[in-house]
Amino acid sequence: MSIRVGILGYGNLGRGVESAIRQNPDMELAAVFTRRNPESVKVRTAGVKVLSADELEHMQGDIDVLVLCGGSATDLPVQTPKYASMYNVVDSFDTHARIPEHFAAVDEAAKQGQKTAVISCGWDPGMFSLNRLYSNCILPEGQDYTFWGRGVSQGHSDAVRRIDGVKDCRQYTVPVPEALEAVRRGENPVLTTRQKHTRECFVVAEEGADLARIEHEIKTMPNYFADYDTTVHFITEEEMKRDHSGLPHGGCVIRTGVTGMDGEHKHVIEYSLKLDSNPEFTGSVIAACARAAFRMNREGANGAKTLFDIAPAYLSAKSGEELRAHLL
Amino acid sequence: MSIRVGILGYGNLGRGVESAIRQNPDMELAAVFTRRNPESVKVRTAGVKVLSADELEHMQGDIDVLVLCGGSATDLPVQTPKYASMYNVVDSFDTHARIPEHFAAVDEAAKQGQKTAVISCGWDPGMFSLNRLYSNCILPEGQDYTFWGRGVSQGHSDAVRRIDGVKDCRQYTVPVPEALEAVRRGENPVLTTRQKHTRECFVVAEEGADLARIEHEIKTMPNYFADYDTTVHFITEEEMKRDHSGLPHGGCVIRTGVTGMDGEHKHVIEYSLKLDSNPEFTGSVIAACARAAFRMNREGANGAKTLFDIAPAYLSAKSGEELRAHLL
Repeated sequence: MSIRVGILGYGNLGRGVESAIRQNPDMELAAVFTRRNPESVKVRTAGVKVLSADELEHMQGDIDVLVLCGGSATDLPVQTPKYASMYNVVDSFDTHARIPEHFAAVDEAAKQGQKTAVISCGWDPGMFSLNRLYSNCILPEGQDYTFWGRGVSQGHSDAVRRIDGVKDCRQYTVPVPEALEAVRRGENPVLTTRQKHTRECFVVAEEGADLARIEHEIKTMPNYFADYDTTVHFITEEEMKRDHSGLPHGGCVIRTGVTGMDGEHKHVIEYSLKLDSNPEFTGSVIAACARAAFRMNREGANGAKTLFDIAPAYLSAKSGEELRAHLL
Repeated sequence: MSIRVGILGYGNLGRGVESAIRQNPDMELAAVFTRRNPESVKVRTAGVKVLSADELEHMQGDIDVLVLCGGSATDLPVQTPKYASMYNVVDSFDTHARIPEHFAAVDEAAKQGQKTAVISCGWDPGMFSLNRLYSNCILPEGQDYTFWGRGVSQGHSDAVRRIDGVKDCRQYTVPVPEALEAVRRGENPVLTTRQKHTRECFVVAEEGADLARIEHEIKTMPNYFADYDTTVHFITEEEMKRDHSGLPHGGCVIRTGVTGMDGEHKHVIEYSLKLDSNPEFTGSVIAACARAAFRMNREGANGAKTLFDIAPAYLSAKSGEELRAHLL
């Protein structure tokens, strides 16, 4: 009997979860739920129904795990606690500063409904967080570094799109190679925001727009760009479509630390990702977490969880015997 | 109240565990146990007693977790089941092919004694295994690669030392850079043993020994060297001491895989270690696992475990709230 997964929200992430389910034979996509008109949504998996989100009120018998693919700003803070009382759920809530309050709200709802809710799944938060945790446990005396990119930041691309005269933008976050190399060499540099990453914008402007003004507005935008060295390239719509239609991303988490009676030995632990598709990779982490949510719920582990709380074997379809024989 | 850790066996690994305990304020080294004459063993932590291994028969009230620092060939297959019925234990059993039978023997003993026994802790098996597992769960369609080095292989160094006319040897395992780069580029090469690693031996020969014969015996030694391209350097005892007294190691685990409805997007996950001291890093992983063994035992999780069965948060001295707020 396979694990019946429902997806709420069919944007990039929902499609990423859909293709991940296709790669896991112990799971099936039970239905896609949308707040739009269901007839306007075409899913790519043959035979899967698109239903109104309202149907979730009475489908507990048909869905083992519901994956919430909304945004962290306004969707998930409402949706995850709401559905965690009715379904085992997984989300990718990624507003790091608000994780404690999100966890508390979801935990209360999930415990009330005796459901298991895994929050903040993906790669950061997610696999990067796990690697920060493991590395901190192994090397208590050390220094953490996280670099993102080269990859598309959707938040920064959206911020540029809101500037007057901008038709489209793709923003790439790029680690500074010299900073990355110094960290890898174990030099423990103290790095400012500007020294760690640069930002590169590919912008399609409206005809006749003041390009100098747009460039100035981008480079001086507080929070998003002012603290970085930013490069702006104006390109055509054709170039945007041809060269920037993907959503690649990646990055690395590095911890450098010392061991020995006098801290005399240095160590470098690095975890790095090179991803052709950010939403599909995130969807793949979510699919593994959906399996864990289902199995932990069967064993009575209710409430909110993160990857920190999941014994790794729960993420796998293989038995403990198989894992020990082939992967240990 | 700190976790009272005992160490059985005070070689390189035992000393690595000792220095790791010093870095974890929630742990203390309760005693070192040895099968040698206890008076011949000097430990580096002030005030810690060295006792005969026989004393372990009646020290259950003084030790929360016993770390077994013997070898995988003959010590651990006997010691870990024996002590797992009396203590929570951690070992670094690393004979991959025999892990299933070791697990079974330890599991039976630990369940009988209602103790928690974490086996095969370190980096391979250990952190490398964990990364193989996580990556396989995220990218079910893909290819695994493990590279070791550049680092000292003690098994290979010992094998050369057994050759007639050899006084000392240090053997370095070295990944082939071209192979590593092809994997990182996502080319999914099929690699033979010879294409993945080379071996480099630094040998101190006895005076008047036949160097050509020694070199030939090394390069043609079955299992250890015959399948590799091996370089042999004859050096003096002074050079050995000056240039090769450390035990550095490291390596990387890489999984390349695809996602998407047609497998159209490629991804590369890499976990890499650069270690100045192999035994101290292994000892640091063991210390974190000792904490997990202690906590899981208090919660009634008896029997044999591996890192696959340990929710990552159990490895940390920090609370779930702290971990979510600072590392997620």
